[in-house]
Amino acid sequence: MWSKLLVGAAALVALHAETGYDAWLRYAPVEGAALAQYRQAIPAVVSLLDDSEIGRSAQAETVRGMRGMLGRTLRTEAGVPSENAIVLGTLDEIRRAAPAWRLDASLPAESFWLKTVASGGVRYTVVAGADARGMLYGAFALLRKVALGQPVASLDEKQLPYARIRWINQWDRLNGTIERGYGGASIFWEDGKARADLSRVSDYGRLLASLGINGCSINNVNADIKALAPDFVPQIARIAEAFRPWGVRVVLAVDFGSPQSVGGLDTFDPLDARVAAWWQSTEAAIYKAIPDFGGIVLKADSEGRVGPSTYHRTHADAANVVARGLKPYGGLLLYRGFVYDHHMDWRNLKNDRARAAYDNFHDLDGQFDDNVAIQIKNGPIDFQVREPASPLFGALEKTSQAIELQVTQEYMGQAHHTVFLVPMWKETLDFDLHAGPGPTPVKALVAGRVFHRPIGGFVGVANVGMDRDWLGNHMSQANLYGFARLAWNPDLTSSEIVSEWTRLTFGDNPAVDKTIEQMQLTSWRTYEDYTGPLGLQNLTDITGNHYGVNVEASERNGWGQWHRADEKGVGMDRTVATGTGYIGQYRPAVAKMYESEATCPDDLLLFMHHVPYTHVLHNGKTVIQYIYDSHYRGAEAVEEYVRAWRRLAGLVDEQRYRDVLAQLEYQAGQAEVWRDAVTNWFARASGIADAEGRVGHYPGRTEAESMQLQGYTVREVTPAEDASGGKAVACAAASCAAEMKYQGAAGWYTVRVEYFDQAEGAAKFRLWVGKQVVDEWTADLTLLPGRPDRRLDSTTSTRRQITGVALRPGDEIRLEGVPNGSDQAGLDYIEILPVR
Amino acid sequence: MWSKLLVGAAALVALHAETGYDAWLRYAPVEGAALAQYRQAIPAVVSLLDDSEIGRSAQAETVRGMRGMLGRTLRTEAGVPSENAIVLGTLDEIRRAAPAWRLDASLPAESFWLKTVASGGVRYTVVAGADARGMLYGAFALLRKVALGQPVASLDEKQLPYARIRWINQWDRLNGTIERGYGGASIFWEDGKARADLSRVSDYGRLLASLGINGCSINNVNADIKALAPDFVPQIARIAEAFRPWGVRVVLAVDFGSPQSVGGLDTFDPLDARVAAWWQSTEAAIYKAIPDFGGIVLKADSEGRVGPSTYHRTHADAANVVARGLKPYGGLLLYRGFVYDHHMDWRNLKNDRARAAYDNFHDLDGQFDDNVAIQIKNGPIDFQVREPASPLFGALEKTSQAIELQVTQEYMGQAHHTVFLVPMWKETLDFDLHAGPGPTPVKALVAGRVFHRPIGGFVGVANVGMDRDWLGNHMSQANLYGFARLAWNPDLTSSEIVSEWTRLTFGDNPAVDKTIEQMQLTSWRTYEDYTGPLGLQNLTDITGNHYGVNVEASERNGWGQWHRADEKGVGMDRTVATGTGYIGQYRPAVAKMYESEATCPDDLLLFMHHVPYTHVLHNGKTVIQYIYDSHYRGAEAVEEYVRAWRRLAGLVDEQRYRDVLAQLEYQAGQAEVWRDAVTNWFARASGIADAEGRVGHYPGRTEAESMQLQGYTVREVTPAEDASGGKAVACAAASCAAEMKYQGAAGWYTVRVEYFDQAEGAAKFRLWVGKQVVDEWTADLTLLPGRPDRRLDSTTSTRRQITGVALRPGDEIRLEGVPNGSDQAGLDYIEILPVR
Repeated sequence: MWSKLLVGAAALVALHAETGYDAWLRYAPVEGAALAQYRQAIPAVVSLLDDSEIGRSAQAETVRGMRGMLGRTLRTEAGVPSENAIVLGTLDEIRRAAPAWRLDASLPAESFWLKTVASGGVRYTVVAGADARGMLYGAFALLRKVALGQPVASLDEKQLPYARIRWINQWDRLNGTIERGYGGASIFWEDGKARADLSRVSDYGRLLASLGINGCSINNVNADIKALAPDFVPQIARIAEAFRPWGVRVVLAVDFGSPQSVGGLDTFDPLDARVAAWWQSTEAAIYKAIPDFGGIVLKADSEGRVGPSTYHRTHADAANVVARGLKPYGGLLLYRGFVYDHHMDWRNLKNDRARAAYDNFHDLDGQFDDNVAIQIKNGPIDFQVREPASPLFGALEKTSQAIELQVTQEYMGQAHHTVFLVPMWKETLDFDLHAGPGPTPVKALVAGRVFHRPIGGFVGVANVGMDRDWLGNHMSQANLYGFARLAWNPDLTSSEIVSEWTRLTFGDNPAVDKTIEQMQLTSWRTYEDYTGPLGLQNLTDITGNHYGVNVEASERNGWGQWHRADEKGVGMDRTVATGTGYIGQYRPAVAKMYESEATCPDDLLLFMHHVPYTHVLHNGKTVIQYIYDSHYRGAEAVEEYVRAWRRLAGLVDEQRYRDVLAQLEYQAGQAEVWRDAVTNWFARASGIADAEGRVGHYPGRTEAESMQLQGYTVREVTPAEDASGGKAVACAAASCAAEMKYQGAAGWYTVRVEYFDQAEGAAKFRLWVGKQVVDEWTADLTLLPGRPDRRLDSTTSTRRQITGVALRPGDEIRLEGVPNGSDQAGLDYIEILPVR
Repeated sequence: MWSKLLVGAAALVALHAETGYDAWLRYAPVEGAALAQYRQAIPAVVSLLDDSEIGRSAQAETVRGMRGMLGRTLRTEAGVPSENAIVLGTLDEIRRAAPAWRLDASLPAESFWLKTVASGGVRYTVVAGADARGMLYGAFALLRKVALGQPVASLDEKQLPYARIRWINQWDRLNGTIERGYGGASIFWEDGKARADLSRVSDYGRLLASLGINGCSINNVNADIKALAPDFVPQIARIAEAFRPWGVRVVLAVDFGSPQSVGGLDTFDPLDARVAAWWQSTEAAIYKAIPDFGGIVLKADSEGRVGPSTYHRTHADAANVVARGLKPYGGLLLYRGFVYDHHMDWRNLKNDRARAAYDNFHDLDGQFDDNVAIQIKNGPIDFQVREPASPLFGALEKTSQAIELQVTQEYMGQAHHTVFLVPMWKETLDFDLHAGPGPTPVKALVAGRVFHRPIGGFVGVANVGMDRDWLGNHMSQANLYGFARLAWNPDLTSSEIVSEWTRLTFGDNPAVDKTIEQMQLTSWRTYEDYTGPLGLQNLTDITGNHYGVNVEASERNGWGQWHRADEKGVGMDRTVATGTGYIGQYRPAVAKMYESEATCPDDLLLFMHHVPYTHVLHNGKTVIQYIYDSHYRGAEAVEEYVRAWRRLAGLVDEQRYRDVLAQLEYQAGQAEVWRDAVTNWFARASGIADAEGRVGHYPGRTEAESMQLQGYTVREVTPAEDASGGKAVACAAASCAAEMKYQGAAGWYTVRVEYFDQAEGAAKFRLWVGKQVVDEWTADLTLLPGRPDRRLDSTTSTRRQITGVALRPGDEIRLEGVPNGSDQAGLDYIEILPVR
């Protein structure tokens, strides 16, 4: 019964166990000397001048946060108190109420000013916003300072958002599933309607507002036509209501064919006056229900979506007709630049999907209305593990833009791999496209700062879900945090961001913080190392689940994610001289660097050039040896993450310690699957052996197909690299077994069993040594929610590791599998390694 | 999803979160230098010579324990291996298999010998049992050594159990409830039958076996007649089967009227031959199904149970007729000594329930069969907070006996107060009754060592249930551990026991261990201090729930738990000279000490003597002032437990940290309720004020009945001492409020609300300061499972404490209550205390 009792003064603060639900807003108690200092510095009163919905959130959040951290419930008041107080208000309100404080600066929208004012023997901690949102962001900033142990006794700090658009896109379908969502079902939708209980939306709004996010699209860019059906507005309005106290504007994704499909017109031609009128009246109806509606995001003429091409109109025609109905209300239209032909002829070496965004939009520069921005993915392909900055960022001078970054880890291990994306985003944001005379980094271009555009900014595809930890992996929360922090201030470094996040999320223990920060900061490179280095892109199953290994999935199809690896060489020739000419889309200074193998960075070599496997990199290694080395380095790095995390036992709260350990151990197994698959594929393709003799040689490994099988039958695996030796065994009987006789030296060993955790069933396994069961487990992971994988492949390939097994020569080792449902208790191999 | 994954090599070890389920058998990983040492010392093989059910448990447990602690899976073998090995076997088996080891000592039943043997260059860690149970206990002892960090490389240690009877009694009803059980429903019974899933019974057997418990009664001593119905044997047999691998014998409680009620005879006269035959055949049938059946426990002629008095027969007649059917199979009959008249005339000052056990059994000494033991409660009354040792222990020279100790905390705060009982038990066990020429401590008497009885020992009433933590309170597990350890070896000190338990249960952090040990070791005295000191007994509601305060509940009724407190004085005169003569039941040396106020220890003064309140104790205080002082000291001690526990934040796993904190905070509130109730009662009775001015004066306290009430109505509380000021307020409307104006100085305060958490409903409360809600909570504790308390009284009285509230003169403080079900949102008072 004791677990039911709220402890102490918890009151009004939801006192969760550390499930990850509170993310970076845990408001954990401050301790020791810092507690005394903050109790001194933070006054007993928090007064609100701005009695708006957002204002009340700011005041209540200040009470909640200070109560959590300092164990004190501040008094909520209005007006300027006669005792020490935190005073929340807009600049105007503060100037009116307390002209003597002379807060005379002017601030741009959504900015804030934290200032300590002494007046008449009383000390005020003033949180002044340019507007209500600015004030809310200021309140969160003040709380964050306390949580991070920063001084607050004498403040004078202004913070201005870097760009106006700081939006989240959610790809939630109205049926409640999420395209590329790895954190559970939709927090917005259920069975075609807004969920009955929208408290998660409100809590999400709070998380977003804490970092200055001001808009969120609530449905998939592959939009359901129902989103603009007239009777659907109340559903959207309910969600807007949940977000409103946090200043998060609702944004809608729409289908360009809506005038016809739900409007009842016989056309959706953007230049037809009836179509324009339909958009206008439809948008007016939305604004009537949702006065703070943020705008629309539109994906057209891409991946099967209808668009202006139906009527031979331009993207500008399409964007403007939708945008004009939003304009009177201040709404924005974000038009996705992710437009390409996915039926491209792969045999034509001049074809190149990477060219598409530029080719589609460059010539339209200047034709878009002022409230339109082109929403451009960071790279020219599609959220691959490494891409150059899209040349389109540097090519639009008279058109507003926004960069689209992907928080949800579609190609980045989904919820199963820890990959911190901020360093990758930083590389793009800081990359100078030489678009003007001075420095023109991507961040400045997308913010509209280079060409003085009225709007611009940052869009993150987040796809949080109903899981307690929002994203399916505690570590992945750092990506959401990092995206939002960069949207507010892209000049922050990766280290600064990860350090903030770690302290807020896991507390102040130096050993914990150092371990997590090092892991996060190296994790992208690690993931690239064991997937596709040198600009190869992910080498994943690009037509399928975007998760497991499939080196050839990119090739010989119209999707255009080609790496052109064959027996002679590897890489896409995108040079102007001999290739697709993609490099010519960059401004000369950039193009010159990429055009030459001599100056092209190794990390993007195979993205820009086709080279023989023996090509020597700047680092002195051949391409093929680098592929081998990087994969072994990457897999070993994850093993080290596991070891480092284990050293934190007892220092991290139990639930999250176990969750992260389980995730990292799984990732370590997957990294080995990737390592073996990719290196074997390239060894076979190139015919060049690994100089270090690792590839194809696995000490202690016995293939399941070469064991003595009872009931198990051998299966060819597709693609072949997805299983060790290209084969696996599976069980079609009630139970099966695979046996071998151990022939090595007596000693202590780690036994690794590589098995297949197929979807829709939970097979059981047992490992016997002689007559002794030394391990048993159930294959019941939900690896790809919504995309069940019933195959024997790298996606379902999973490692079970049993440490500390004593083996003696002659021991019979027996693996027993009991299938269940679609899960055939498949086995790939067993590996017996001496304990280090 | 990650929480589903078993981490690492956990394999076969159930890797629970720290819910308390594993109790002292957590087998937490050994770390650092110790790990290396144990990996050196513990060989790779555990070989079993004794291929019995118990033997296989011992071997499997060794594998499980070493895997958990050392991360290694030992190889299970049979015979004497040719490499270093742990060898498990009975002495006979070991001598046969390895005569060269010369393990030639003889050991009494259930003993074991841990011995390191070097032979032919191989090192054996031999666990030799006198029999299978001894071997199992030895295996657990070896595991415990590793868990406690004790050396195991060179062993030569014999352990002999102190007594043969080391039993648990469970008071489980066949309907699945438990009389005086505070840890959930029965693990044995459900709806009149053995539970379908008996895995909890098996896990309980493992916990018991780990400390050498060899028998367990599985049904209430107030026995259901159905227990001996012929068709019921298979139910008992199923439970016996679950216990059997752990060597725990099943024991049954029976109703003495069974020959008539289920046997179909017209009598249960123990001297009737048909009755004797019935017992014989009934018991034979049990043994046929359960060859290792342990025996029977019998409560007769007590508290409404039928007994031999119906036929004017003696307890010996009753015991012997039941015992004789058990004898051929080695079964034992434990006959409860808890026989008394509960309709005694309280007006007769010579009457004394404490005399009953001695008076009933002393004259029968020598008339009981050899396989009968009288099961005698530690004290002469009934598990009160302090009683002298029962004089009967010293009075039986030709009759076997066992001491009955109560692990379940019936009068000890149930699952809601932390009270470690080992120090209390030790006082009794070590108390010398001067029954022979040499030392005759109770432990030696009950073990049969003084008068050379064939049987004797220890019975603990445990009452574990289906709660994950078995007993409803993590700290209470120490009582089960301590009872079992004392049953094996009563010479262990309280410190040794608590130190073992704490390390096994919470790990090796010195700060954690020191805090828990100090709390546990002082907790009995603390509980006595705030309930009934000086031998007053508990002062609880003895005719009701045995939990809340009711000073007069003992008086003016036939139950005989009288303390005789009135306006003139307090205490039961049990002297020979002027009182009930109870003291005369002790041997002269003991009687002499108790008879005189000058030599009677203060702690038992009021148990033995009636004195005026002004009587001066050996410690120099008057009785009345000691009552005041001890209650304030006890309540303050619990507050300090809370503070000490809070200092362990981050050092104890999250779940148990929160559970224990919630329990201790509740206990601190209850201790204050007790303090105020008892001191006020005695202040009123004695007319003598507290010399320190505390009693009746409560700084910062405002009675609910004196607040401005909206909807709330004032109620008289019974007994009056159960509420501050004798009154409370309750709400019969949809919602009610109580208001006051704060008149004190501005500052930070802790606000305490004393409210009533009545059963069968969950009222909601809100505390407002001005227009601000500073706390809200729900009154949804399940305080007395099975005995719902719907009253406004000390049992339901519960404290909500809100720290860090800023108050200013003139503040309106408002308590809002919303009743629910039978819960009327009752309030006792509000207390406003400056933050220290």
